Amino acid sequence: MSQNTSSRPLTRASVIGAHEIIKPHIHRTPILTNTTLSTLASTPQTPQALEKTQWAGQTPANPTIRLFFKAENFQRIGAFKVRGAFHAVGRLIEELGVEEVRRRGVVTHSSGNHAQALSLAARTFSIPAHIVMPTISTPSKIAGTQAQKAHVHFSGSTSVEREAVVAEVQRETGAILVPPYDHPDIMLGQGTMGIEIEKEVEELLAADAELGRKGKAGLDAVIAPCGGGGMLSGISIALEPTSIRVFGAEPSFEGGDDARRGVEAGERVTSVKTLTIADGLRTPLGEHTWKIVSDKKYVEGLYAVTEQNIKDAMKLVLERMKCFVEPSAVVGLATILYNEDFRKMVEKEAGDEGWNIGVVFSGGNTTIEAITKIFASDVTEKQAERHEGVLGSDGRRQVENVAG
Amino acid sequence: MSQNTSSRPLTRASVIGAHEIIKPHIHRTPILTNTTLSTLASTPQTPQALEKTQWAGQTPANPTIRLFFKAENFQRIGAFKVRGAFHAVGRLIEELGVEEVRRRGVVTHSSGNHAQALSLAARTFSIPAHIVMPTISTPSKIAGTQAQKAHVHFSGSTSVEREAVVAEVQRETGAILVPPYDHPDIMLGQGTMGIEIEKEVEELLAADAELGRKGKAGLDAVIAPCGGGGMLSGISIALEPTSIRVFGAEPSFEGGDDARRGVEAGERVTSVKTLTIADGLRTPLGEHTWKIVSDKKYVEGLYAVTEQNIKDAMKLVLERMKCFVEPSAVVGLATILYNEDFRKMVEKEAGDEGWNIGVVFSGGNTTIEAITKIFASDVTEKQAERHEGVLGSDGRRQVENVAG
Repeated sequence: MSQNTSSRPLTRASVIGAHEIIKPHIHRTPILTNTTLSTLASTPQTPQALEKTQWAGQTPANPTIRLFFKAENFQRIGAFKVRGAFHAVGRLIEELGVEEVRRRGVVTHSSGNHAQALSLAARTFSIPAHIVMPTISTPSKIAGTQAQKAHVHFSGSTSVEREAVVAEVQRETGAILVPPYDHPDIMLGQGTMGIEIEKEVEELLAADAELGRKGKAGLDAVIAPCGGGGMLSGISIALEPTSIRVFGAEPSFEGGDDARRGVEAGERVTSVKTLTIADGLRTPLGEHTWKIVSDKKYVEGLYAVTEQNIKDAMKLVLERMKCFVEPSAVVGLATILYNEDFRKMVEKEAGDEGWNIGVVFSGGNTTIEAITKIFASDVTEKQAERHEGVLGSDGRRQVENVAG
Repeated sequence: MSQNTSSRPLTRASVIGAHEIIKPHIHRTPILTNTTLSTLASTPQTPQALEKTQWAGQTPANPTIRLFFKAENFQRIGAFKVRGAFHAVGRLIEELGVEEVRRRGVVTHSSGNHAQALSLAARTFSIPAHIVMPTISTPSKIAGTQAQKAHVHFSGSTSVEREAVVAEVQRETGAILVPPYDHPDIMLGQGTMGIEIEKEVEELLAADAELGRKGKAGLDAVIAPCGGGGMLSGISIALEPTSIRVFGAEPSFEGGDDARRGVEAGERVTSVKTLTIADGLRTPLGEHTWKIVSDKKYVEGLYAVTEQNIKDAMKLVLERMKCFVEPSAVVGLATILYNEDFRKMVEKEAGDEGWNIGVVFSGGNTTIEAITKIFASDVTEKQAERHEGVLGSDGRRQVENVAG
């Protein structure tokens, strides 16, 4: 049995309702700006940088872009996932009463950020949480989940084996399944970020205006990573009645851009097998998220970036913004900096006035060891040189190294 | 000829004056808090963690500590050094007039953060900046300095060779030397951080009190890294008339704790040859900074930490706080977490009430490549395991992984 709350309509009003439920339990994460990165985004790539891409020989786009980063890497448990988890648990409590939810408990089979988020949300209300993890999970992840006082159940590593253990846990305990992304309560919970980024950028620009700085009063667009689509669909539901356009970004490696491909083909891609470094984005869209993400009224476009684009963007965020993020978090920025289709679209749509773009940094749960592995192949003498300089890591754009 | 401004007294009032001069040119960097790290700091180390240290067999200290981080890694050019540089340049302009300073220019022989800071400050007022760098500097550093529109002059790598080139530049151009730390204007400029951290923590705690949270109204202590001593002396000058105690932290590797050793011996250590990973702290105290740093009225104590302590603290700041810092930036936190002399002192002095401690993150100018090298020796299977877990990287303390 999946989370069995009565359906809320997928509307901005429901997202605002979700925000009221989760506000006491989440951090209000900051909006960050960075002159270096906005300048980079507003500078054309060199023709050389495009040579081995599908845009070889084309004139590089020259959009004007001001960036506003929503730093969900500073969120509790280090990722946006607590929003959906606290909303899902809050809704269960509303509908069933806290005693009933405590008696039954909750269960999920994610071993990543959602498992931690659900464990935290459950623990906050003294609700038992059951997390089904493959036996082959790294011992540190198992210990991490146990440290959150969750009950860890082991399974084989295929989805069939994992779902069998979930079913067993449910039979034994009556625990309610809280899925990681494909559920209205999760989507509405993640969508709360859309409300925050809209309001917070307005506040920031109003303060700028008081200081006499001219410019637009709010955002023109938001770009968010798309894995299972919980966050992207939620944000687009939140912003649907506004003039803010919403875009999704995906890794292209080994077909990780399943949403983009699905929308192009007019049919959801139901299975993805990619080992992209953006490991939070390896999942396909679900049934609920597909309906929203594939609808142009909600998500205006989907764009894909290469592994090298992700690494280059991540390097910029760490070294220039001094902000520790996981690879999945930077696919939006990578799209803005390196995807010429996106850049041409902005140049055309925004004109000389340019766009204010909100970029979601979805999380920061990686380790120095993982980063070392990701960049290991880059640490050749020539590339170390290229990367250390004042040039963008693609060697194209020279800007002052000023944080903040 | 060194910076030849008339002397300002080394007082809090002069630091406040410096703050007025530099305010338009620097970022107001945030104060960060982190539940995980404050909990770690308030949890005793295990007896095992002390086994191979000088505190083996002793009962681990059990202080109560709330941490407030001043994030100067988000400062312009990624480090606090712009404070001193803008103050030094501002004072020159005040005394000589901007035309005279423009005619002569400024010169320094640092190749690190001070060179970038001085280049930026000079460029802001259209003043030529001459930076003397060893020929063997990495090409990226040279390109970086040139990108700041500074004139790069090459020298040999010994200090005698570098000073000869500085003298030559001065003969040819009349440029005024702005030293990296051992000058009253630099010390007063860096000290502005002391004023900010004091006020900003008070504001933050006042906001907490409005929400009904109980606790102290301000800081009990500040701990800052000590290399040449410009920042530590400046902060201690700023806070001398207050009740806030100031402490310094150094790397112990290869005698990098020259300030601590000098104070113990009653005589300044004038030469240091350490290759500590805290590469901003390899320099000895200067004549001006020694007078302040060695005076207990200003700096109440100096503490040293090992290379492993620095790596452990850095890992926590990156992975838990999601904040990108350079190794020099975390010696203060490393002292708080791992130096039992410091921890016992806090336990005794602060009692059950505990202390609010301000910790200066001095800068974030490192690269993924540099971090990869620093941690390369740790990436053995056993250690990777140990580091990835929910345990502190020293394996001792188990806490919830909650950012912010």
